[in-house]
Amino acid sequence: MNNTIRQLTDELGPDAVLTGPDISGKYHADGSGETAHVPAAVVRPASTGQVSGVMRICSSNNRKIVVQGGLTGLCGGATPREDEVALSLERLTGIEELDRDSMTMTVLAGTPLQTIQDAADDAGLLFPLDLGARGSCNIGGNISTNAGGNEVIRYGMTRNLILGLEVVLADGTVITSLNKMLKNNAGYDLKHLFIGTEGTLGIVTRAVLRLFARPESRNTALVAIQSFDEVIRFLHFMSREFSGSLSSFEVMWDSYYDYIIRHVPAVSSPFDDRYPIYVLTEISDKSNQNGLEDALAGELGAGRILDAVICQSERERQSVWAIRDGVGDAMAVISNNANFDVSVPINRMADFLAQLEPEIKGLLPDTSLLVFGHIGDGNLHLVFTANRKEDKKTVYDVVYRHVGAYNGSVSAEHGIGMQKRAYLHQSRSNEEIALMKLLKQTMDPKGILNPGRVLG
Amino acid sequence: MNNTIRQLTDELGPDAVLTGPDISGKYHADGSGETAHVPAAVVRPASTGQVSGVMRICSSNNRKIVVQGGLTGLCGGATPREDEVALSLERLTGIEELDRDSMTMTVLAGTPLQTIQDAADDAGLLFPLDLGARGSCNIGGNISTNAGGNEVIRYGMTRNLILGLEVVLADGTVITSLNKMLKNNAGYDLKHLFIGTEGTLGIVTRAVLRLFARPESRNTALVAIQSFDEVIRFLHFMSREFSGSLSSFEVMWDSYYDYIIRHVPAVSSPFDDRYPIYVLTEISDKSNQNGLEDALAGELGAGRILDAVICQSERERQSVWAIRDGVGDAMAVISNNANFDVSVPINRMADFLAQLEPEIKGLLPDTSLLVFGHIGDGNLHLVFTANRKEDKKTVYDVVYRHVGAYNGSVSAEHGIGMQKRAYLHQSRSNEEIALMKLLKQTMDPKGILNPGRVLG
Repeated sequence: MNNTIRQLTDELGPDAVLTGPDISGKYHADGSGETAHVPAAVVRPASTGQVSGVMRICSSNNRKIVVQGGLTGLCGGATPREDEVALSLERLTGIEELDRDSMTMTVLAGTPLQTIQDAADDAGLLFPLDLGARGSCNIGGNISTNAGGNEVIRYGMTRNLILGLEVVLADGTVITSLNKMLKNNAGYDLKHLFIGTEGTLGIVTRAVLRLFARPESRNTALVAIQSFDEVIRFLHFMSREFSGSLSSFEVMWDSYYDYIIRHVPAVSSPFDDRYPIYVLTEISDKSNQNGLEDALAGELGAGRILDAVICQSERERQSVWAIRDGVGDAMAVISNNANFDVSVPINRMADFLAQLEPEIKGLLPDTSLLVFGHIGDGNLHLVFTANRKEDKKTVYDVVYRHVGAYNGSVSAEHGIGMQKRAYLHQSRSNEEIALMKLLKQTMDPKGILNPGRVLG
Repeated sequence: MNNTIRQLTDELGPDAVLTGPDISGKYHADGSGETAHVPAAVVRPASTGQVSGVMRICSSNNRKIVVQGGLTGLCGGATPREDEVALSLERLTGIEELDRDSMTMTVLAGTPLQTIQDAADDAGLLFPLDLGARGSCNIGGNISTNAGGNEVIRYGMTRNLILGLEVVLADGTVITSLNKMLKNNAGYDLKHLFIGTEGTLGIVTRAVLRLFARPESRNTALVAIQSFDEVIRFLHFMSREFSGSLSSFEVMWDSYYDYIIRHVPAVSSPFDDRYPIYVLTEISDKSNQNGLEDALAGELGAGRILDAVICQSERERQSVWAIRDGVGDAMAVISNNANFDVSVPINRMADFLAQLEPEIKGLLPDTSLLVFGHIGDGNLHLVFTANRKEDKKTVYDVVYRHVGAYNGSVSAEHGIGMQKRAYLHQSRSNEEIALMKLLKQTMDPKGILNPGRVLG
């Protein structure tokens, strides 16, 4: 390894290569809770050419690398192992161009998401990817994990927001596909090899992002509903009524809602009563508060929803979103929680939950189950409050087995990383996994790029 | 070849294998105008298992196959050569499931697009892919070419409408990824290997399509505008004003508009005067005719647009779309036309056209250039009316050289097929093409799947 580090230092300069005690704690782990390690070295290239140089050197020396962005991932994709060189993109940062005519932004991979959101906003435009880690996650990580978030129902996952990419392959080859056009069928669309493959096939260094017109206003409501069947009906009603303007449809089961109201400080319910299910829904377009009021009044009058509150101010909007976002605070106090980010086809969700909960309760009677999710996308978040750390494995096994049986996905939006590798087969067939391994073997024959992530 | 045909007949039964004079003309060519050929045989599998059987046999005998769907492609992807077995998907047809809760439809690859549109409509839903060939093209072809069409600005290309695929690989392996969920990050998203790769990496046999709420109404306007800069400004105005509801934004330069009005029977202009550029724009949502009227009245009052007509009936709407769709009729009478389906970044389009037209006119003084396109998507359609067949090559060379210089795409939506292979390097770098070839070599090592299409 010393020889590799010497070559890397020659390539990048001494201040761009950290070793031993110079490697601060922030490089030891991502947000997954996987065991932290000090990597063999940290390299901090400041250009695509330098990333390419790092890969040429690591490839010729058979050295493994792990790519690090904002380190907010939840699946262990960026937590290093001791024999790996951590390639941090922290110096490859900045917005290179904002093209108002084409409504695109060209950015370096290490740029924080929030910096991008703010720059779009300053130009009167919108970059619609949004998630809790916006302040610290980087766009390169969002791309390599195909991040989701709260507005997928309207704008799609990160994949749908990427027009072009520049990528460095395992051997240092630079692939430049910085397309700015919505339509481009000139040969294979190579960017999809790198979006959502968690850095195992190449390192994203630059991206062209698609921007949108910024909606003039957001209208937000919290709606109480009797049953999951009625939730699906209400989803379809809102989709019809507000067509392309429906931007959020977040569902919270009473177990989740009550838990958050009781446990998270400064969060309160706008309703006096308790209800079986709650929907937080948002319309983003020209101001259409009257439209939302009329639609919900009609639903309420017909008895199809039980109650509704329309937010009258940004403060009220924030207080309703605080219930949905309260899960972050709640997780901090639930010590042995087992978290899931799964998808299940919408028409099978009710059965999935009806089967899953009693089976877990039978095995672990003291467990609570909190359920919420982006239902319009098929995405359920489950939190089990297990009593003992050793029970978590039991919960994982049962949940992922059910996910498999219901043709669901073991990861809706967080990815596989190191954590869910063992469960990938619940969502993907042997033939699919064999094809993934063939791609990996072809594009990274030495197995040096984020090894052990996604594929075993 | 006789041995292969015998094995194919044993596998599929005699009525599913055509040879010699039994191969009718429809299997000899697609819509590209490339030279027609009688293939060595036509096989018509009726199940995924049979498609797999065909590929096993062709692979073990080193026989080349060309996949045929509705044969409406414009680039020669499905026109057979004499040493190829044509694999027709015409018997692999039908809708298997329409899931209203998940808003998905599962279909076989040989199903015509219009059958799918109609089934969605019957369920009160929308499958938003739409193009002129809707009655005869098949969804499998739409997927393998990543078809575009008139509503890309709102709903995206075919890629964005596909949730899951079943595919048969070159060796007969069946990859089943019939995902129904909007969010699924469980490992590599393999479907992107097959969408838009024109059947060179696998044969799509089944797909899960994403359906949408059907907008309650469409409001259509034809707008006259002074300059291309003002067109871009108007595009952004409409995007802001109608946010997620703007579904079409078709631009016609006066050269195109006047040509169609003069040459296509039964097409007329709703304006008394002539203008530099025309925009056909459509809003799809709850009835919002007042909104469109108010918006256009404001633009007209401020002098930012020159004139506007809002369609008051479906008949008026059809007559305005007839101007845009008149190109099909016009092509039939322009004998030596050279057609282009290119993309150029929006902010460079005006310069691109300003450079291109004089250069062509310098070389071929009698040529007319008709320009129109889906400008919101960066997509320009160009038609040159060359006087002599031998001039077409000159026009191709000049146009694609300019497309390359402007970082454009030699194919926005039609694909590469056999026709544009020689120009692929104008839009893609050597490194990109090398990576495409690596994928092709890996997934089809014998080179038997649609050989010579896309890649040379």
